[in-house]
Amino acid sequence: MIVDPLKDLPTLEDVEDAARRLRGVCVRTPLLRSDELDARIGAKVWIKPEMLQRTGSFKMRGAWNRICRIPEEARRRGVVAYSSGNHAQGVAESARLLGVPAWIVMPEDSPRAKIESTAARGAHIRLYDRIRESREAIAEELLQASGATLIRPFDDGWVMAGQGTAALEACMDLREAGATVASFICSASGGGLLAGCASALAELAPDARSFGAEPSGHDDLVRSLASGRRETNPPGVRSIADALMAPSPGELTFEVHQRHGVGAFSVEDDDLKAAMSLVFRTLRLVCEPGGAAGLAAVMRNAAYFAARGETLVILSGGNVDPTTFTEALQSS
Amino acid sequence: MIVDPLKDLPTLEDVEDAARRLRGVCVRTPLLRSDELDARIGAKVWIKPEMLQRTGSFKMRGAWNRICRIPEEARRRGVVAYSSGNHAQGVAESARLLGVPAWIVMPEDSPRAKIESTAARGAHIRLYDRIRESREAIAEELLQASGATLIRPFDDGWVMAGQGTAALEACMDLREAGATVASFICSASGGGLLAGCASALAELAPDARSFGAEPSGHDDLVRSLASGRRETNPPGVRSIADALMAPSPGELTFEVHQRHGVGAFSVEDDDLKAAMSLVFRTLRLVCEPGGAAGLAAVMRNAAYFAARGETLVILSGGNVDPTTFTEALQSS
Repeated sequence: MIVDPLKDLPTLEDVEDAARRLRGVCVRTPLLRSDELDARIGAKVWIKPEMLQRTGSFKMRGAWNRICRIPEEARRRGVVAYSSGNHAQGVAESARLLGVPAWIVMPEDSPRAKIESTAARGAHIRLYDRIRESREAIAEELLQASGATLIRPFDDGWVMAGQGTAALEACMDLREAGATVASFICSASGGGLLAGCASALAELAPDARSFGAEPSGHDDLVRSLASGRRETNPPGVRSIADALMAPSPGELTFEVHQRHGVGAFSVEDDDLKAAMSLVFRTLRLVCEPGGAAGLAAVMRNAAYFAARGETLVILSGGNVDPTTFTEALQSS
Repeated sequence: MIVDPLKDLPTLEDVEDAARRLRGVCVRTPLLRSDELDARIGAKVWIKPEMLQRTGSFKMRGAWNRICRIPEEARRRGVVAYSSGNHAQGVAESARLLGVPAWIVMPEDSPRAKIESTAARGAHIRLYDRIRESREAIAEELLQASGATLIRPFDDGWVMAGQGTAALEACMDLREAGATVASFICSASGGGLLAGCASALAELAPDARSFGAEPSGHDDLVRSLASGRRETNPPGVRSIADALMAPSPGELTFEVHQRHGVGAFSVEDDDLKAAMSLVFRTLRLVCEPGGAAGLAAVMRNAAYFAARGETLVILSGGNVDPTTFTEALQSS
């Protein structure tokens, strides 16, 4: 059980507790399949579409579970978050619903849709320059001035437990369908979704292995798992996956990854576009580049995943500008 | 209770019976909302996303419920259907799952994605020229040759009852959310979805009124409800809503429409594109032009629907070519 969210790792009980708090607030997203996708991979693939989640990504799950835990008095002083967009929206929406003021520090090159959607939820936006400024320093200033609580994007037990509810729901639906998965995969940036889901799956589906997927220029997780310590990405490398730009795995999330023996794959921008295009055509869903990394890795390593058995994939978000989306459809 | 599907109109019991048969075969699609959409309309709008249904449209519901009723011996001789694409896919997929041969008569100008997807499900495709040939005559020939059963696209009590399960599911989810709707609206071509849902809602939500939405060049339902008899569209009028090209309301469906006092709206192609674009952005779903008619009508008549109260909208399908989809995103 989590007592200090900056030290304790989430258990299945923490994830189940988060699920109870999310009820009626977050969308219980369905579990989908496509014969065409299965045929392409050579085995059944189960899709958890988190673009259908409130705010368009899984981030609402962790943000809500975290902000709920702030004592009433501290809550009134507000919350602060830094994020390229999806965590921003999850925090802004949770804060709005709970009547809590929110300050969000966002890179000025975030997709316009994400900045606008965050502002529309009533949050105060502070844009910063990714190269010249430190988001941590800006957040620290805001915290000092307001007495607000920092909502970390992944290195927080309650945030991880909230994200893990996606795997918990999927396991319930898999059981109803009489299915068993051998692999689970999702996008990994800081690793909060992966860590939360791996924690739940370790108990709910102990024979399944969890994997993270990331852009090849940001393969910090692949390298960290290989070296056994948290590796950092070289600064300045770009990817169309704007949601997957964390410089390294989190301290806590990496501890979870190691504990549960997670694996990792890296994918190219073209793999992300191909996955977005397949999702458009066979599942009629809008997936953002960063949300498609898990499926892109399965498509690129189809024989590997098919040999293992059935796979559960989270499509983690759908906040994408029409031009980026259109380019993905046209290029593959 | 339906005894003769060519004469009997569906009741709530028939819809509930269909729902039992659909379990484990069709997707129980979720009920979604968007604050941005609500703000735009001025009242809560509940979205039932049938593009997430197996085969990408609600048509699977009616096709499955209908084919299940064919006695074992007759079933072996196969089924025949004519359709511009969505009914084709629903019938082809149901037949495939039940091991029944299927012949599908499709206009040669159907979207390529719909033709390919139907063929991929193992159906025999017979393409025809919309202007020069009669799909009914072609179907009749096939029926005579094979002894197969015709699966009508809408004028069949069991087909209507199957489509009505979408409203039944939505009512269960609305009850859980503590919500009551004053209006229900969906696309109308032959009117099977509208008739099935109106039949269920007449008992489940007797204070709600049901509406159909159709392209302005195919406003046979608007004119038929005004005149009290089945009016026909002039031939040759085009719309981007390829799924909504039936020449007139069905005999049985129109009887249901009149019995339950349904209303109707017509919308322009630009309204359909605007709705598709809003659905992309706020719900991250891929909607085809014909699937967006209900939402397009609500957006165009926002004050009317807001004054009535909350609205339930079915987005009826998502089988759209990337170029058509891209054009819709770019034009609005």
